[in-house]
Amino acid sequence: MSKIYLDDIPLEEARKRLQERIQDAGLWNLLGVDRLPLDETLVGRVLAGTLWARISSPHYHASAMDGFAVKSDRTHGALETAPIRLQFGEDTTYLDTGDPLPEWADAVIPIENVEAIAENGEAANDPRQPNAIQIRAAISPWAHVREMGEDMVATQLVLPHGHKLKPVDLGAAAGAGYDSLDVARKPRVAVIPTGTELVYPGDPLQAGDIIEYNSIVLAAQIKEWGGEANRVENIPDDYQRIKSEVEKAAKEYDLVLLVAGSSAGSEDYSARIVEECGELLVHGVAVRPGHPVILGMVNGEDKDTPIVGVPGYPVSAALTAEIFVEPLLAKWLGRVPEKPEEVAATITRKVNSPAGDDEFLRVAVGYLGDKALAAPLSRGSGVITSLVRADGLVVIPRGVQGLQAGDSVRVRLYRSRDQLEQTIFAIGSHDISLDLLAQFLSVSQRRLTSVNVGSLGGIMALKRGETHLAGSHLLDPESGEYNLKYIKQHIPGISLRVVTLVGRTQGLFLARGNPKRIQGLEDLVRQEISFVNRQHGAGTRLLFDYHLGDLGISASSVKGYDHEEYTHLGAAAVVASGRADCALGIEAASYALDLDFLPLYSERYDLLIPEKYARSDLLAPLLDLLEDPKFRKAVAERPGYDVSQMGQVVN
Amino acid sequence: MSKIYLDDIPLEEARKRLQERIQDAGLWNLLGVDRLPLDETLVGRVLAGTLWARISSPHYHASAMDGFAVKSDRTHGALETAPIRLQFGEDTTYLDTGDPLPEWADAVIPIENVEAIAENGEAANDPRQPNAIQIRAAISPWAHVREMGEDMVATQLVLPHGHKLKPVDLGAAAGAGYDSLDVARKPRVAVIPTGTELVYPGDPLQAGDIIEYNSIVLAAQIKEWGGEANRVENIPDDYQRIKSEVEKAAKEYDLVLLVAGSSAGSEDYSARIVEECGELLVHGVAVRPGHPVILGMVNGEDKDTPIVGVPGYPVSAALTAEIFVEPLLAKWLGRVPEKPEEVAATITRKVNSPAGDDEFLRVAVGYLGDKALAAPLSRGSGVITSLVRADGLVVIPRGVQGLQAGDSVRVRLYRSRDQLEQTIFAIGSHDISLDLLAQFLSVSQRRLTSVNVGSLGGIMALKRGETHLAGSHLLDPESGEYNLKYIKQHIPGISLRVVTLVGRTQGLFLARGNPKRIQGLEDLVRQEISFVNRQHGAGTRLLFDYHLGDLGISASSVKGYDHEEYTHLGAAAVVASGRADCALGIEAASYALDLDFLPLYSERYDLLIPEKYARSDLLAPLLDLLEDPKFRKAVAERPGYDVSQMGQVVN
Repeated sequence: MSKIYLDDIPLEEARKRLQERIQDAGLWNLLGVDRLPLDETLVGRVLAGTLWARISSPHYHASAMDGFAVKSDRTHGALETAPIRLQFGEDTTYLDTGDPLPEWADAVIPIENVEAIAENGEAANDPRQPNAIQIRAAISPWAHVREMGEDMVATQLVLPHGHKLKPVDLGAAAGAGYDSLDVARKPRVAVIPTGTELVYPGDPLQAGDIIEYNSIVLAAQIKEWGGEANRVENIPDDYQRIKSEVEKAAKEYDLVLLVAGSSAGSEDYSARIVEECGELLVHGVAVRPGHPVILGMVNGEDKDTPIVGVPGYPVSAALTAEIFVEPLLAKWLGRVPEKPEEVAATITRKVNSPAGDDEFLRVAVGYLGDKALAAPLSRGSGVITSLVRADGLVVIPRGVQGLQAGDSVRVRLYRSRDQLEQTIFAIGSHDISLDLLAQFLSVSQRRLTSVNVGSLGGIMALKRGETHLAGSHLLDPESGEYNLKYIKQHIPGISLRVVTLVGRTQGLFLARGNPKRIQGLEDLVRQEISFVNRQHGAGTRLLFDYHLGDLGISASSVKGYDHEEYTHLGAAAVVASGRADCALGIEAASYALDLDFLPLYSERYDLLIPEKYARSDLLAPLLDLLEDPKFRKAVAERPGYDVSQMGQVVN
Repeated sequence: MSKIYLDDIPLEEARKRLQERIQDAGLWNLLGVDRLPLDETLVGRVLAGTLWARISSPHYHASAMDGFAVKSDRTHGALETAPIRLQFGEDTTYLDTGDPLPEWADAVIPIENVEAIAENGEAANDPRQPNAIQIRAAISPWAHVREMGEDMVATQLVLPHGHKLKPVDLGAAAGAGYDSLDVARKPRVAVIPTGTELVYPGDPLQAGDIIEYNSIVLAAQIKEWGGEANRVENIPDDYQRIKSEVEKAAKEYDLVLLVAGSSAGSEDYSARIVEECGELLVHGVAVRPGHPVILGMVNGEDKDTPIVGVPGYPVSAALTAEIFVEPLLAKWLGRVPEKPEEVAATITRKVNSPAGDDEFLRVAVGYLGDKALAAPLSRGSGVITSLVRADGLVVIPRGVQGLQAGDSVRVRLYRSRDQLEQTIFAIGSHDISLDLLAQFLSVSQRRLTSVNVGSLGGIMALKRGETHLAGSHLLDPESGEYNLKYIKQHIPGISLRVVTLVGRTQGLFLARGNPKRIQGLEDLVRQEISFVNRQHGAGTRLLFDYHLGDLGISASSVKGYDHEEYTHLGAAAVVASGRADCALGIEAASYALDLDFLPLYSERYDLLIPEKYARSDLLAPLLDLLEDPKFRKAVAERPGYDVSQMGQVVN
């Protein structure tokens, strides 16, 4: 089988080809109309036609108060000193709020403003059934009357077609005389995951297995966008089975999403099947991630059905749907496509991007004072957490080689600007207690976004004004003190508050049972022992170098000294996989991967906070938490954590 | 029955009383946890516990490419001129993307970067099954490998508790080893509408009937906020029936919403029932609208159940739910309460507000250049369209008497700032063609918000810089020309483009069959004829005055000259209700209310657009539409409309 040529056509061209083909098929419009009873289930549905008021609301002149209907001109001349008397049943009658105004009346006097008089001239027993009322002030025409049409007049525009219904809209529709509404039929989408390597969530896992969740994410996206998805069972890489599933889906659904597996042939299968069952329009689009996307049209008996071949990597899959599926569903529903809110921001670091592609870069966004910063997240198309954590997307357009740190960019937001203004950026060394801080902060409507670049990286972020705070545990080998020397060295000009977060135990991650009988750093010089290190600038790296020096061991005699990992958990994972025998890190990470742990050193982990942020409303709840017994308890329960110095201001 | 005292306590105090009572009842927390299978139905549900990764993702070192697994140190020294050969099966093996890396390997060389060689030294037939591969460049450790835990490492924080699930979150949860999630149980809410005057949508209507839709709006709000509502049938004002319905609901639901009718006794019933069935905590809160809200706790057999007595006016009902119900549902779901986005804006006109109340003022919001303006909408608590049209709420706090035009306010937005930046403000005379413009503009992602203040009011709004454009049809009696004289007189300094929108027929609205045989304005002096006028500054008022003068008729001889309505439809409604015999207005409005129409004059209706906006991107689609045959056709189909001059620049 020869590989079908994957020609990377530009995004706009790809969209256009698909749209034109759908137009040719007569499908570039509403798919249908559902007439549904007016109730709460209509929220989020899209109006298929313009809603004009059928009746006025109120549909009659209504009393706006409990009171007496009168002809206003009969009240003229009434004064405190010269009351006017109106005979009940002749000149006036009683109305509850909402009662229709009699034909002859043009105003209502509230009950509390009249004297209700009985036949004997005394106060009436039931003030609503007097013999007469006496008034001491004139009233103007239409006073205390809800005029017919006050809310809506018949034939007036109530809601435009294409409008996504909100709760109050349903009230307006009812008031306008409707008991059912015509809404766009939900597009029906089949999602077909393929790949012999796929297993279901919860299935036992072997190396090489992939937990299939693209179909869940795609189905959820379709639901959010107003469609209805059906997830087909996982289909192995069997050409005939996939093909017959596509043919079946093309008959029953409005759109087919064929999710490629990760194996070499999988995507070729998709392209070939689309070609065989109809027409292959696009194979490969110049976007990253999402590159190998397939667009086509397949025959579904009496109709043509669009098909999108979705790449198997989860980030590619989710973004492919945003780019190609959402606008199509919008068209079919008759609504405008979702347009994410955008903000201008400054990108925090250099990003290289292939000049030929539109790249969709995931970023975390934070406001440092008035300045919005966008910090690039992992660009791996397999890293779904980069989408979970993303506050928005930056599109690096074709023809642009990439971005320089400090470049101004537009961010398409996944969250509201207000939420982002409540976001605390923590760039630096990561610690599990930051995750706990994030948890506890959520009740104060604060978000904590941490970006892990190591202690020194955090100090550099402070220097560039890119973070509200930095976690740091940099040991000064000379003084035995933490952080202060490095602050003085790198950011002497910044007025900084240094607050201790935790004390924690560092030690060696070891395979279960410690088969190589490692007793300390001294053993690292043994020929059969391999180590995995942390990156330059990490506090743990510094701690390691310090103690190596103390023991008189040279870096070159440690096997694996140059193998760098960026996190405690990453280093622990290397040990867990058997690729190294040990690594230096914090105790909690050893539990994460079910490793043995040899405690060696205790160290201090501080938060470095510019004074202007330390005094801000934004960070106040965070600093308060350091005094909160519940938070301290939650941290202290983690293995190797000591909260005795939590909240102490070091400097 | 004596009236239960309605003491207006401040909002915060009312909230506090309710919260404390709910805390006492042990209900100020999650109501329960549902463990549900991981699928798309979980979108929007709230996590009941923190999600920590159970497994790493990937859970093994995986090849990131189709290629050959190698030990990287075996490739050192490979050069273009000095290739290194690796024996298949010994030094290397083939991997598809996603395949696990063998224990002995630490890197992958993509298949396109190797020469696959057969036993005979020539190119291998199947490049995936060669005898050996030859490479001409060294490769670094971990190149083209997705390391175990690249996405997530076991025990890492994936999602915090209280998080509202989005589509990608479901993928992350599956990748983290979950096949079900613990989410907060949906709070169950009973909605009980009461009032003998209530009828269902679609029922035939009598004067005095109220179409019950509060329960639909409330149920929809509850659904949006994550709860589950059950609407009970309408209950007439029958004390025992309402009471037994409340008692039943208190047993079966987490919260009861008892919606008062509009009759005098209805709200007293609610208070009395709450008192009898449990404890009345609050009766009357110092908020507008929403004033007579009731808060309490009723006994539901083995538990206490909070109850909210919701006022019957629809705006009050919807806002009461926003203020009291949403935060309660948020607490029960364990999520943070919805916090609407806020913007600073300038209020466009004076608003008086009772000093004792927190007032929730509905406003339309538009950006005039960089300046956000908030235009107050109808304050009537029966005007549901004021909520439909509202872009946000301005809270006028207790102790503040009101707002002056030009005051700076905070607006709690119902729409995104981006949407509002795409909003075109049209303040001035209203015409049905503006509604059609709004319809057609929606495809360009523009919103048209029109505020009806009459032609002269629009010119004044232009003067104050408060609108992008104004609709106007002000006749100059001397020249017979439209608008230009008034522009020169009132806003000579503004560089303005005047563009004709439509020509339209003005005439008299008459009762069906013209029972009083009115043949023209001359008949208005007849004793038995009553008229309804338009407000001062309206183009129609000017037209009327002009022709009255022309006919030598004095205003004082026209009965009803002082009865002013603000819209064509409003004036027509007065005629339809029999309260006046005729009114001057446009033909379309007569159709709206099924009236006869006597055409008299034809007039020009222009759009007055400051040149800076006429040239803006924002308004470009609007000006384009004036040339669009489809739009012209839609307008021309309306009775009395002439589009022959549409788009002509008058000045």
